[in-house]
Amino acid sequence: MLKPLGDRVVLKIEEKEEKVGGFVIAGNSHAATKTAAVVAVGQGVRTLTGELVAPSVKAGDKVLVESHAGVEVKDGEETYLLVSEANILAIVE
Amino acid sequence: MLKPLGDRVVLKIEEKEEKVGGFVIAGNSHAATKTAAVVAVGQGVRTLTGELVAPSVKAGDKVLVESHAGVEVKDGEETYLLVSEANILAIVE
Amino acid sequence: MLKPLGDRVVLKIEEKEEKVGGFVIAGNSHAATKTAAVVAVGQGVRTLTGELVAPSVKAGDKVLVESHAGVEVKDGEETYLLVSEANILAIVE
Amino acid sequence: MLKPLGDRVVLKIEEKEEKVGGFVIAGNSHAATKTAAVVAVGQGVRTLTGELVAPSVKAGDKVLVESHAGVEVKDGEETYLLVSEANILAIVE
Amino acid sequence: MLKPLGDRVVLKIEEKEEKVGGFVIAGNSHAATKTAAVVAVGQGVRTLTGELVAPSVKAGDKVLVESHAGVEVKDGEETYLLVSEANILAIVE
Amino acid sequence: MLKPLGDRVVLKIEEKEEKVGGFVIAGNSHAATKTAAVVAVGQGVRTLTGELVAPSVKAGDKVLVESHAGVEVKDGEETYLLVSEANILAIVE
Amino acid sequence: MLKPLGDRVVLKIEEKEEKVGGFVIAGNSHAATKTAAVVAVGQGVRTLTGELVAPSVKAGDKVLVESHAGVEVKDGEETYLLVSEANILAIVE
Repeated sequence: MLKPLGDRVVLKIEEKEEKVGGFVIAGNSHAATKTAAVVAVGQGVRTLTGELVAPSVKAGDKVLVESHAGVEVKDGEETYLLVSEANILAIVE
Repeated sequence: MLKPLGDRVVLKIEEKEEKVGGFVIAGNSHAATKTAAVVAVGQGVRTLTGELVAPSVKAGDKVLVESHAGVEVKDGEETYLLVSEANILAIVE
Repeated sequence: MLKPLGDRVVLKIEEKEEKVGGFVIAGNSHAATKTAAVVAVGQGVRTLTGELVAPSVKAGDKVLVESHAGVEVKDGEETYLLVSEANILAIVE
Repeated sequence: MLKPLGDRVVLKIEEKEEKVGGFVIAGNSHAATKTAAVVAVGQGVRTLTGELVAPSVKAGDKVLVESHAGVEVKDGEETYLLVSEANILAIVE
Repeated sequence: MLKPLGDRVVLKIEEKEEKVGGFVIAGNSHAATKTAAVVAVGQGVRTLTGELVAPSVKAGDKVLVESHAGVEVKDGEETYLLVSEANILAIVE
Repeated sequence: MLKPLGDRVVLKIEEKEEKVGGFVIAGNSHAATKTAAVVAVGQGVRTLTGELVAPSVKAGDKVLVESHAGVEVKDGEETYLLVSEANILAIVE
Repeated sequence: MLKPLGDRVVLKIEEKEEKVGGFVIAGNSHAATKTAAVVAVGQGVRTLTGELVAPSVKAGDKVLVESHAGVEVKDGEETYLLVSEANILAIVE
């Protein structure tokens, strides 16, 4: 299990099928944002005076994340995306 | 429904029809600013010492936003623009 | 009416006629500064600890502004310049 | 023995064997992250007001670190990687 | 009259005549600094916590200013230089 | 004697002999770090609020320093390296 | 007399004669540092919260300064170097 540090968040990207003229295209690599599920969050960022600010998202949230943000990590068979909280634009409700 | 994080704001851009020599041109892509309606706002920014500063705009405000700011997001059939509050220049009253 | 946000200021640039060898040239695009009238001001900037610092100019002030600062905005028939207070160099008295 | 300063962390990178068509390839240089064991940690970073913030990892932790971060150092026969805590993305549990 | 804002200072540059092989050359454009008289000062800079720090120069001071700093402004017939206090290196006594 | 200012540290680099195919090569210019002895330390850095933070190394410590950091200075016959404390990665014990 | 502002320091560079194969070469322009005498110091820097931090050098100190730092200024017949305190690496005792 991955326990992200600081303001980092572990996401599971939602794969979407898209049809273009009969072809099925996995994912939508041309969009500026992706939809993902929050898997785990870090403790949050620290202010300049050292206090912790808890993350604004929590495990289970469905979020909109910037397309090219973060790094892919493998945990067993699963692929996750590790991003900074700042790369998460909105919660989808 | 999109619930923006931090200092982010969900906007609905106003499409304007413009006529140039009889042709109808949708939008005005050459202007430095666009007019938009505020759909949803985040909690606001945090100061360096960790306090939240509430956003200066609220859902329903008509605003002037920098033309090339933000990313387009889809929520169902609707297209929105997700910007930072800093990209909003003025409220139009 | 435009209600600028944060440290932004709405200005009305003074058009000046200039004569060069009999020709009348509108404006003086080669100067490093322009003269303008303050039309509206925002609430001001926030310090890092979150306090508001009120703007140093007010509606009605005649000011000197950096030539290439800000963006032009239209409000009905009128064209205004939206600048940051930091682009205003001096009040002309 | 290396005693890292400030926010630095001494890591021992885990070498992994990988098989590509029968060949054995040491390490996986194409991944964005590496797995490593924490060997030693510094005192932590200081906030702008001078307080020490203890590191979020400790000797013995298994961590995920950015691939190209840090510098290699030799301590006797052993090779270590000296990184900033900020380059450590997550603890692997 | 110009009333500079913030950390800005209005200067009147001292023109110096210089002789090079019999020719009189106005000013010394190749020097790294210029000598100037302080005409007016702003209120000063604000610290990050919002307090005003009064300027270190006052009207009437003779100062050494970086050669390429600031913008030239006209006030009636007179030409002035508007610089940041940070561009003033020393008071000449 | 050199008394370094602020966060600066005076180091004496350890010259190491290295043999490559029978040739003796002084130093190891291709490594990312060098080993050095701390000769003198400054008072330390100041936080943004003005407090002094004492250096983490002291005269006599053996340290690992980034290879290309600092400037060489001569004090009589001896050559020293003047670096910022931030360029020192670890104490070697 | 020059009274430097803020963190600035007025230095008098020590000219050194150097002999290379019988020729006398004034100064040592190829070195990374120069030796200088402190002539005058400013009030010091201000922290982000506005307090003054007095300079670490005083008139009369012999210092080591970065070679390419600062600007040359003339005060009557004498040439001085105006640098920031940050460009002074060490006091030579």
